[in-house]
Amino acid sequence: MMMISPIIFIVSLLLSSSCHAAVQDFCVADLTTPESPIGYACKKPETLTVNDFVYSGLGVAGNTSNLLKAAVTSAFVTEFPALNGLGISLARLDLAVGGVVPIHTHPGVTEVVHVVSGKITAGFISGANKVYYKTLNKGDIIVFPQGLLHFIVNAQKTPAEAYFSFNSPSPGSQLVDFALFGNDFPTELVAATTFLDTAQIKKLKGALGGTG
Amino acid sequence: MMMISPIIFIVSLLLSSSCHAAVQDFCVADLTTPESPIGYACKKPETLTVNDFVYSGLGVAGNTSNLLKAAVTSAFVTEFPALNGLGISLARLDLAVGGVVPIHTHPGVTEVVHVVSGKITAGFISGANKVYYKTLNKGDIIVFPQGLLHFIVNAQKTPAEAYFSFNSPSPGSQLVDFALFGNDFPTELVAATTFLDTAQIKKLKGALGGTG
Amino acid sequence: MMMISPIIFIVSLLLSSSCHAAVQDFCVADLTTPESPIGYACKKPETLTVNDFVYSGLGVAGNTSNLLKAAVTSAFVTEFPALNGLGISLARLDLAVGGVVPIHTHPGVTEVVHVVSGKITAGFISGANKVYYKTLNKGDIIVFPQGLLHFIVNAQKTPAEAYFSFNSPSPGSQLVDFALFGNDFPTELVAATTFLDTAQIKKLKGALGGTG
Amino acid sequence: MMMISPIIFIVSLLLSSSCHAAVQDFCVADLTTPESPIGYACKKPETLTVNDFVYSGLGVAGNTSNLLKAAVTSAFVTEFPALNGLGISLARLDLAVGGVVPIHTHPGVTEVVHVVSGKITAGFISGANKVYYKTLNKGDIIVFPQGLLHFIVNAQKTPAEAYFSFNSPSPGSQLVDFALFGNDFPTELVAATTFLDTAQIKKLKGALGGTG
Amino acid sequence: MMMISPIIFIVSLLLSSSCHAAVQDFCVADLTTPESPIGYACKKPETLTVNDFVYSGLGVAGNTSNLLKAAVTSAFVTEFPALNGLGISLARLDLAVGGVVPIHTHPGVTEVVHVVSGKITAGFISGANKVYYKTLNKGDIIVFPQGLLHFIVNAQKTPAEAYFSFNSPSPGSQLVDFALFGNDFPTELVAATTFLDTAQIKKLKGALGGTG
Amino acid sequence: MMMISPIIFIVSLLLSSSCHAAVQDFCVADLTTPESPIGYACKKPETLTVNDFVYSGLGVAGNTSNLLKAAVTSAFVTEFPALNGLGISLARLDLAVGGVVPIHTHPGVTEVVHVVSGKITAGFISGANKVYYKTLNKGDIIVFPQGLLHFIVNAQKTPAEAYFSFNSPSPGSQLVDFALFGNDFPTELVAATTFLDTAQIKKLKGALGGTG
Repeated sequence: MMMISPIIFIVSLLLSSSCHAAVQDFCVADLTTPESPIGYACKKPETLTVNDFVYSGLGVAGNTSNLLKAAVTSAFVTEFPALNGLGISLARLDLAVGGVVPIHTHPGVTEVVHVVSGKITAGFISGANKVYYKTLNKGDIIVFPQGLLHFIVNAQKTPAEAYFSFNSPSPGSQLVDFALFGNDFPTELVAATTFLDTAQIKKLKGALGGTG
Repeated sequence: MMMISPIIFIVSLLLSSSCHAAVQDFCVADLTTPESPIGYACKKPETLTVNDFVYSGLGVAGNTSNLLKAAVTSAFVTEFPALNGLGISLARLDLAVGGVVPIHTHPGVTEVVHVVSGKITAGFISGANKVYYKTLNKGDIIVFPQGLLHFIVNAQKTPAEAYFSFNSPSPGSQLVDFALFGNDFPTELVAATTFLDTAQIKKLKGALGGTG
Repeated sequence: MMMISPIIFIVSLLLSSSCHAAVQDFCVADLTTPESPIGYACKKPETLTVNDFVYSGLGVAGNTSNLLKAAVTSAFVTEFPALNGLGISLARLDLAVGGVVPIHTHPGVTEVVHVVSGKITAGFISGANKVYYKTLNKGDIIVFPQGLLHFIVNAQKTPAEAYFSFNSPSPGSQLVDFALFGNDFPTELVAATTFLDTAQIKKLKGALGGTG
Repeated sequence: MMMISPIIFIVSLLLSSSCHAAVQDFCVADLTTPESPIGYACKKPETLTVNDFVYSGLGVAGNTSNLLKAAVTSAFVTEFPALNGLGISLARLDLAVGGVVPIHTHPGVTEVVHVVSGKITAGFISGANKVYYKTLNKGDIIVFPQGLLHFIVNAQKTPAEAYFSFNSPSPGSQLVDFALFGNDFPTELVAATTFLDTAQIKKLKGALGGTG
Repeated sequence: MMMISPIIFIVSLLLSSSCHAAVQDFCVADLTTPESPIGYACKKPETLTVNDFVYSGLGVAGNTSNLLKAAVTSAFVTEFPALNGLGISLARLDLAVGGVVPIHTHPGVTEVVHVVSGKITAGFISGANKVYYKTLNKGDIIVFPQGLLHFIVNAQKTPAEAYFSFNSPSPGSQLVDFALFGNDFPTELVAATTFLDTAQIKKLKGALGGTG
Repeated sequence: MMMISPIIFIVSLLLSSSCHAAVQDFCVADLTTPESPIGYACKKPETLTVNDFVYSGLGVAGNTSNLLKAAVTSAFVTEFPALNGLGISLARLDLAVGGVVPIHTHPGVTEVVHVVSGKITAGFISGANKVYYKTLNKGDIIVFPQGLLHFIVNAQKTPAEAYFSFNSPSPGSQLVDFALFGNDFPTELVAATTFLDTAQIKKLKGALGGTG
C-alpha cells in the first residue's frame, strides 16, 4: 500500500517532540538518586515495563497481632516508584477487633478514607477545635483535610479494612503520641508545652520507648 | 481551679489568628456559586457538620445492566463538596462479566486504580506509543500517569469492582469514542484527522448517537 | 516640547495590556466576599492607597497578663488584606517570664521564627519523631518545616519578643491541647486515640473548657 | 441496531462525572465578576461557542505612528477570556523603523519573543547584572526569564513584526521609565533611589507627563 | 570622583544575596543530567552566553514532502534548554496543501495556535463531547485547553504556517492513531476498548507500522 | 508492663511509611549538588542536627560604612540551607543615617518589610505606574507585591533596622541602576531603551564601574 511509508514518515516528524518529551509523561523514581523537594530523578523510560506501574503490596493484609490491633501498609513513592511527581498515593489499613490508629497528621497532605469492610469511627479536629467524627460503614468515605489531626478506631466486634488515598506521592506522618513520648524529648519540656502531668508523660514514655 | 480562666484567656489570644484562618483548613464547596479555575467558594464553616465530610454514594454498586456492563460512580467535588480545593477525589467502578471502560483520558489528572474484587485487564499508552497493560488481581493497583490514554476490561467470567483515586477534586474525562462519534463532528473531518474509513465512522456515529 | 505627546501616545499603547493586568500585580482582599480555596476576591485597584499595603498592628505588644504569659498578634490576610494571594504573612510573639507557646502545627505551612529580644527555647519534632530544639538568642532564626509539631518557651527570666514569618497569607493553627481537650471530643475517644489516662484527660478538659 | 441504546446507556453513566467536571476542562472568564488571585469566575459552559476560543485581534497591525514607532497588541485574559486559568497568553509587536520597546519587566512572568518579519535587537539583564542581547532575524526566538528587565529595538531600516508568548494569562508590565517618570513620584525620592541627576529626572518627567 | 568606590562597595553588599540567587533567575538545562519531575539540573550560570537564550530552529520550514503534508518543528526544553523550569515552549507547524495534524492531546498542557500564513481549520472536543472548530485566517489565534483532543487541517489550496505556544517547557504529545495502531497493542484489546471493527484496526495497524 | 512491646510493635508498623517519607518533611539543601528549578538535592536526614535549622547570621549588623550607608544581610537557601524547597527566607537591613536601598525588584517574589528600629520611607510602583510610599515607624510592616519595583530610604537622623521576609527560599534581586550602568551594556542601547541622556548614562557607568 502506497500510504504506509509516508504516514510513518510524518509520524516520525510529528513525534520528534513527543519523543523528547516522553519522559515528561511520567517519571518513575530512581530511588538511588538523592531526593529533591519534588522527589527523585527519573528512571530511563526505555527500561520501564508495565510492572513499574503496578504494585501488589496492598493485596496482603498487614499483621494486626499487636496491642493496637492495627496495621498500615503503604504504597508511597518508596514502595511504588511510579508515583514520583504524580501527587497521589495509597495505603491499606487493617484493623482487628479493638484496633486503633492514634491521633496524627500528614503535614500538608489531604487523606480520603474508604471503608471496604467492617465499621470504623473516624474523625478529625479543625483549627477552630471542632471535632468532626462519625461511625462509617462499608462503602463510606471521609476526607481529612490537609494536615489536620485525625484518628480511626474499629467500631464493632469484627475486623475492618480500609484504604487511604493521599494527594501526595510521599505523605509524611506525625503521630502525636510518638512525637511527644517516643523519643528523648525532655519530660519538663513536654510538660511545659502540653500541660500534661509529669507522671502521665513518664508513663507513656515508658510505654513508647521514650527517654528523658 | 485557679488555672482555668487564665488558660482560656491565652487560648483566645493564641487562637485569634487561627479563628480567622479556620476556613483555610478546608473549603467545602458552595455549589451555588460560580466556579473559578480553582473551584467553588466556601460554605461558611459554622454551617458544617461531619456529614459534609462523609460521602456514602460509593457504597452502592452502579447499574451494569447495559451493553458495556460497566458503571462508574464518582465522588467528585460536585457529589462530595468537601473535596473542593483539596486535590483529590475517588470513584467506584463496577464491571459485570464482559464489562469494559473504553479508551479515555483525564486531561492533566493522574489516576490510581485499586482492584477490590474480580480480575481486570488495565493499561495505558505512553506519549512514545508504548502500551503498558496487565491483568490485575484483587489487591493490585496500577497508575495511569497524568492525562494518558487508558482502558479497563473485565478479565474473567465474574464481576469486578475497583476504585479510582484521582489527584484532582474534579477530574474531567474524555472518552475517545464519544469525542469522535457521539456528537456532530463532521464525518469528513473525523476521517481526515483519524484515518478511519467513512463507513466505520458512520457506523459508530450511528451506535453512539452522533450526527454529521 | 514636541516629544511629549508622542511618547505619551506610545505609553498608552504599551500600557493597554498592563492596565488590564494591573489588578494582577496585587489582589488586596475584599473581605466581604466569600472565601475560595485561593483566598478572597480583589478590591478594585483604583480604590487602594498606600495604607492598604501598610499594617501597624505588630507595633503593639500583646497582653501577656495570662497564665501562659504569651500573646500572638497576627498580620494575616484577615488583618492585612494586601497579603491575599501573595503567599506570605507575619505575626508577633510576646512572651513574659515563664511564657510558653504550646505544641501546635500550622497545617501545610512553614514558619521562620526570628528572636528580636530575650531568649527562647524553640523546637520541632520530625515525622521520624526526632526532636530538634535549641535555646535561641536575639538575632537567631529557626525554621519549623511545613506542618510539623513545634513549640516555644521563654528561656530566661526576662520577657522575649519574636516574629514569625509564614509562607501563607492565612496559616491555620492547630494546638494539640485545645484540639484534644478544649472541645466536646468524648473522653473515651481521646483516651483510645492518645493512650492518655482518663483522669489526665478530664483534668485538662476541665482546665481548657472542654466537655464530654 | 440493537447496540445503540445500551451504549448510549453506558455513556450517560460513564459521563455522569465528566459532565459535572466539564467546566473543569476550561473556565472562560466572566469579566463581570470580581477578579481573584487566580483570575475570574467561569462563564456557564453551555453558553460557549467556538468563538469564545478564537481571537482575531492580533491579525491587525498596531498603529506605530508615534515617536516610539512601536505598538503592542495583547491577547490577554481581558481581551481573550478563554485564557482564564490556563497559564498562557500572546501579544503582537509592531515596530516601525527606529521603533523601541523600552526597558521593562513582567513581574514573575516569562516571555518568549518570536520574530516574524524584520530584524530586532533584543536583550535582558540578569540578577548578576550581565547583559544578554543579540540581533535576531526572522524565525529566531529569545526567552526573557521570569521577571527580568528586558528591551527590544528595531535593528534595521525596515519595519519588524514579532509575537510574544507569556506563561500567564494576565502578564503585568512595568516599564522603568514610566514607573520613575510618568507619575507623581517625588523628584527627590527618584534621585535618592536611582542616583540620577535632578535635571535628568525633571526632563523625563516633563516628557512622560510626570509631576513632582 | 569620590563617589565611585563607596557605591561599588554597597553594590557588593547588596548583591551578596542576589549573587547566590542568580541561578534562580533562570536554570538553563544541563541535558546530560537525569530528568526530575520538574526538569533538568541547571548549567553553571557563568558558562552561559546570549546564545543559550536564543534558538533559530523555528526559522526553517519543516519538510512536508510526506503523505500528511505536515511538519512540526519544536522548540521544547530538549531543543532550547533555556526553557527549563520556565513553563513555556513553542513549535512551528508547516502544512502543505492537504496537510493535516491528526487528533491528539498534550496531557495536561494548554496550546495556543497562531496562524501566520494560509488558512487552517482547527478544533478541539470538550469533556462534554462538544466539538468546537473553526476555519482560521492569518492572524487568528485559537486555544486548545489543557489536555483536550484537538486537530488541524489545511483549509485551502495553499500552504499554511502556524506557531504553537504551550504552557510547559516539555509538552508531551499523544496522537490517538499512533497510540492505537502504531504499536503492538493487541487488536482484540483495541477492538474491545474502541468499538472499532477488527478489519479497520488491522488496516490502520498496517498503515502505521503496528503489529498484533 | 505488658503494654510496652506491643505498642512499639505497632509503632514500627505505623511508621513504616512515615520513615520512608521522613525526608519529605524537610529537604535541607546539599549545596554541593547542582541546582534544579526547584532548588537543591537534600542532605541525608540522619546527618542533620538542630543546628541545620537555626541560623545566627542575622544577629550581626551589616557594615554600613559605605556611601549608601546601607547593608543587607541575607538568610537565603545558600546561607541557610534548611529553607530549601520551603518557600520562605529572611534578610536584615541596616541603614545608617542617609542610607538608601535603590530601586530594585525581586523577580516573581513578594517581600514584607518589618521595621524594628528607626524610621524608613518605603514604597513601590504598580504596573499602572502609581507610586505607593509611606514613612514607616518601628513596628510597621509594608508589603511589596511580587516583582514590583520598590525602594527604601532612611527617613530620619538615626540608624534604622528592618527585616525582610520573602515567599521564596532564594529571591533574586535586580537593582535598576546596576542593571543599566554596572556592566558593559552599550551606552547607545541604554539611551535608546531608557530615554536617558548619554551624559547621564556615562556618568553613572563611571560611578558604578560600568563600561561601554
